[in-house]
Amino acid sequence: MLLSDLASRLNLERSGPDVEISGVGTLEEAGPEDLSFLANPKYKTQLRHTKAGAVITAPENAEGDRSFLLSSRPYLDFARAVRMFARTQGFYSAQSEQAYIHPEAEIHDQASVYPLACIGKGTSIGSGTSVFASVYIGENCSIGKNCTIYPGVNIMAGTVIKDNVLIHAGAVIGSDGFGFAQDMGGMEKFPQVGRVRVEEDVEIGANTSIDRAALGETVIGRGTKIDNLVQIGHNVHIGENCIIVSQVGIAGSTRVGNGVVLAGQVGVAGHLNIGDKCRVAAKSGVGKSAPEGTDLGGIPAVEHSRFLKNSVALNKLPGLLREMKKMQHELSELKQHMHGEE
Amino acid sequence: MLLSDLASRLNLERSGPDVEISGVGTLEEAGPEDLSFLANPKYKTQLRHTKAGAVITAPENAEGDRSFLLSSRPYLDFARAVRMFARTQGFYSAQSEQAYIHPEAEIHDQASVYPLACIGKGTSIGSGTSVFASVYIGENCSIGKNCTIYPGVNIMAGTVIKDNVLIHAGAVIGSDGFGFAQDMGGMEKFPQVGRVRVEEDVEIGANTSIDRAALGETVIGRGTKIDNLVQIGHNVHIGENCIIVSQVGIAGSTRVGNGVVLAGQVGVAGHLNIGDKCRVAAKSGVGKSAPEGTDLGGIPAVEHSRFLKNSVALNKLPGLLREMKKMQHELSELKQHMHGEE
Amino acid sequence: MLLSDLASRLNLERSGPDVEISGVGTLEEAGPEDLSFLANPKYKTQLRHTKAGAVITAPENAEGDRSFLLSSRPYLDFARAVRMFARTQGFYSAQSEQAYIHPEAEIHDQASVYPLACIGKGTSIGSGTSVFASVYIGENCSIGKNCTIYPGVNIMAGTVIKDNVLIHAGAVIGSDGFGFAQDMGGMEKFPQVGRVRVEEDVEIGANTSIDRAALGETVIGRGTKIDNLVQIGHNVHIGENCIIVSQVGIAGSTRVGNGVVLAGQVGVAGHLNIGDKCRVAAKSGVGKSAPEGTDLGGIPAVEHSRFLKNSVALNKLPGLLREMKKMQHELSELKQHMHGEE
Repeated sequence: MLLSDLASRLNLERSGPDVEISGVGTLEEAGPEDLSFLANPKYKTQLRHTKAGAVITAPENAEGDRSFLLSSRPYLDFARAVRMFARTQGFYSAQSEQAYIHPEAEIHDQASVYPLACIGKGTSIGSGTSVFASVYIGENCSIGKNCTIYPGVNIMAGTVIKDNVLIHAGAVIGSDGFGFAQDMGGMEKFPQVGRVRVEEDVEIGANTSIDRAALGETVIGRGTKIDNLVQIGHNVHIGENCIIVSQVGIAGSTRVGNGVVLAGQVGVAGHLNIGDKCRVAAKSGVGKSAPEGTDLGGIPAVEHSRFLKNSVALNKLPGLLREMKKMQHELSELKQHMHGEE
Repeated sequence: MLLSDLASRLNLERSGPDVEISGVGTLEEAGPEDLSFLANPKYKTQLRHTKAGAVITAPENAEGDRSFLLSSRPYLDFARAVRMFARTQGFYSAQSEQAYIHPEAEIHDQASVYPLACIGKGTSIGSGTSVFASVYIGENCSIGKNCTIYPGVNIMAGTVIKDNVLIHAGAVIGSDGFGFAQDMGGMEKFPQVGRVRVEEDVEIGANTSIDRAALGETVIGRGTKIDNLVQIGHNVHIGENCIIVSQVGIAGSTRVGNGVVLAGQVGVAGHLNIGDKCRVAAKSGVGKSAPEGTDLGGIPAVEHSRFLKNSVALNKLPGLLREMKKMQHELSELKQHMHGEE
Repeated sequence: MLLSDLASRLNLERSGPDVEISGVGTLEEAGPEDLSFLANPKYKTQLRHTKAGAVITAPENAEGDRSFLLSSRPYLDFARAVRMFARTQGFYSAQSEQAYIHPEAEIHDQASVYPLACIGKGTSIGSGTSVFASVYIGENCSIGKNCTIYPGVNIMAGTVIKDNVLIHAGAVIGSDGFGFAQDMGGMEKFPQVGRVRVEEDVEIGANTSIDRAALGETVIGRGTKIDNLVQIGHNVHIGENCIIVSQVGIAGSTRVGNGVVLAGQVGVAGHLNIGDKCRVAAKSGVGKSAPEGTDLGGIPAVEHSRFLKNSVALNKLPGLLREMKKMQHELSELKQHMHGEE
């Protein structure tokens, strides 16, 4: 594709010579037919050495006579350019006889079911959706349009997945919540009879697990992105456009607002309310509800600015203990001295 | 079902009018034909607004002229009521020709094997057990009666699973332990030739992994419940009726007693002894053995009460550092003052 | 096998009577036909009670008239002995008609493909490699020789796996990295068009996930061992002979040197450089790059020796606060006293 065509499709201004673009790459790795990007001015020196045929960047960074696409949002526009060159994964677009599809399942003509997938009784699958190999979709599920269910995903009975949802390999949706009633002789399982509902445009990472509700629903809100190996407990409600990074765990019945960011390996206790736009630093353990817009850090989590101060202070603590001893000694000498005077 | 029938099946006293009950729900969501429950008196005000047809609760909470079942253990009795209305997951109850069953495997007539399951040589499966799609059970395994092996579970060679075990989707039982001998040129694998033994009434969560022993056995004791995404290392022995919450990791050769509770994201180092009824707070890192009944918290974990005090104190530390400076200043002034006097 | 044969195969000196050896076991569990080992002199008293037919140990520990193999590296030599008695897992060595193999895949005659595996278009699989049931290998992958791909593994399109790689059940290689560009209306996915390359002699644990690069490659270096439930982000480069213990998470674009050890549940932030031979204590959170040979601990991680001091000091902090109050009181009394004198 000519750079000028790309410019018009992305609605961007071009500077420098028009060139043929056939792929994309980082500034380090791109070749003469690749488009690259510069978003962070910190890496500006790489512009001198890159072999990229053209670079998307902000006008103020577009120095020299190379070919540029000028953008106020270079990362976003580069993402869109990448999409034009990206091939969709997969190699199968029919409904395989080597799959097991229950006779009472309703699969849209325009949906793909790979060999070795298994689809249960009373389940419906929308147009444009791909179900890869070794996927299990239990009975009475509803899967929307244009979803991608990558291989090895297990979707348990009654799950509702809306349109444009992307689920990565090995994720489990609708596993039983972890609920037991104590009896004298041990524990008795509380049957988990609720379901999971996943709204439009959600992405769910590899080997993540989302538990069904005990009663009612576990909900993942529209546009929320969940990374790999995340645990979402039963009856959790997550709002819209949240970012849940890898290995986060959210315990049962917690409500997470819209636009919340939970960084890697964060844990959130059960029955909490985490307000809109809260952000929690990696590895923190949240034990209390947090109002809208709070930044948190630490175990147990406190306001992030306090967490930073605590961390700095902790490194001074061993020295403080030594000084403390010294002061106690001085103080006692001073007292002796005074009593001696009297 | 009439509430009066339910009362007699649960062996509970009924108060208020007899009504038809066809389902279960929370106080918030239940309708006129649903049974609900109130266990925590904190939520008592919800009783006024609920549309539930009947409520299980303790006699002292049963106010008003609505229909009640009176119970001293409302959560446990509600769990039992839910079980009466719950449908078992699944839609297949034969032994599928679309599965692969090794000719030398012994599958009981009353066991189900879904399409696309794979069962190895010399493996036996007991009566009433269901093996879902995409399950792999390696050679020489023994699976008991009335087990549920949900889809995508992988059970490696030689594993022993006793009766009434429930394994959620994507769990791996019998993966190799992580053991290497250092050699000059790198690491040499210590072949992991032991096995995993899972006792009766155990539940294992989605995408959890339990490693086989290097030599001998990894053991999960009777009645223990393991949540999702948990890691159990090789040669770990877990006792009976333990609760192992999501994303916990237990390193190799550690012994966990009976009735132990490990909260979410806890890590336990290898070669430790964790005594009966120990409880470890979420996100803690246990680096030492703990005697029976110890409550632990923190990284590294200390007694839980101390962990709480440390956490409170840490938040005062930055202020302490400032006061310390001030005191040092005052002390030095005082000393100067005294020396000036002399 | 006679102990004398074992001695010559392991190139070790034998002491005591020659005996028949038919298996291996720990000192506690071994019987009269088993070989055992003693590496840590701490367990030397077990030598008196073991029923093992022979024991591999260092010459200085070989006391009594039992049969020994004398070794300066008893654990390594025992690992090699175990290998001689270990059976390889698995029960299938053909290319099953019950698998789905794309007509344009190239499977070596000497490779095994279990029933219910799925292999995509343009993928090649080398000699001696076993692909277990429910494995998915996407299009255009290259899998080397003598690899073991255990059941339920998902390898996404374009992945390169070199020779002698062992991948445990449920692992996902080549899932999308977690990358989104913020737009006004929400988040737009940055298409992840790079790949994963896994070098020779790597082991990857059960239910671990390794993300493909956004652009370019995610790389796992030769001889590196990765445990279960580990998360490797997009564009991470891991060097040779590293040990990555269970539930570790490494965020995007971080570079890990050679011989690095990350203990259980460690988190490493993105875009860092972790130098060769660094070692990070369990549960630590690494937020800064670290030069070669650094030992780290804590959240956020600091030098390990400092982390230990901080931890000890933290336990003294509540007491320190009390003493501080006392000192402030004394100091103020002293001041009053002096002013009184004036």
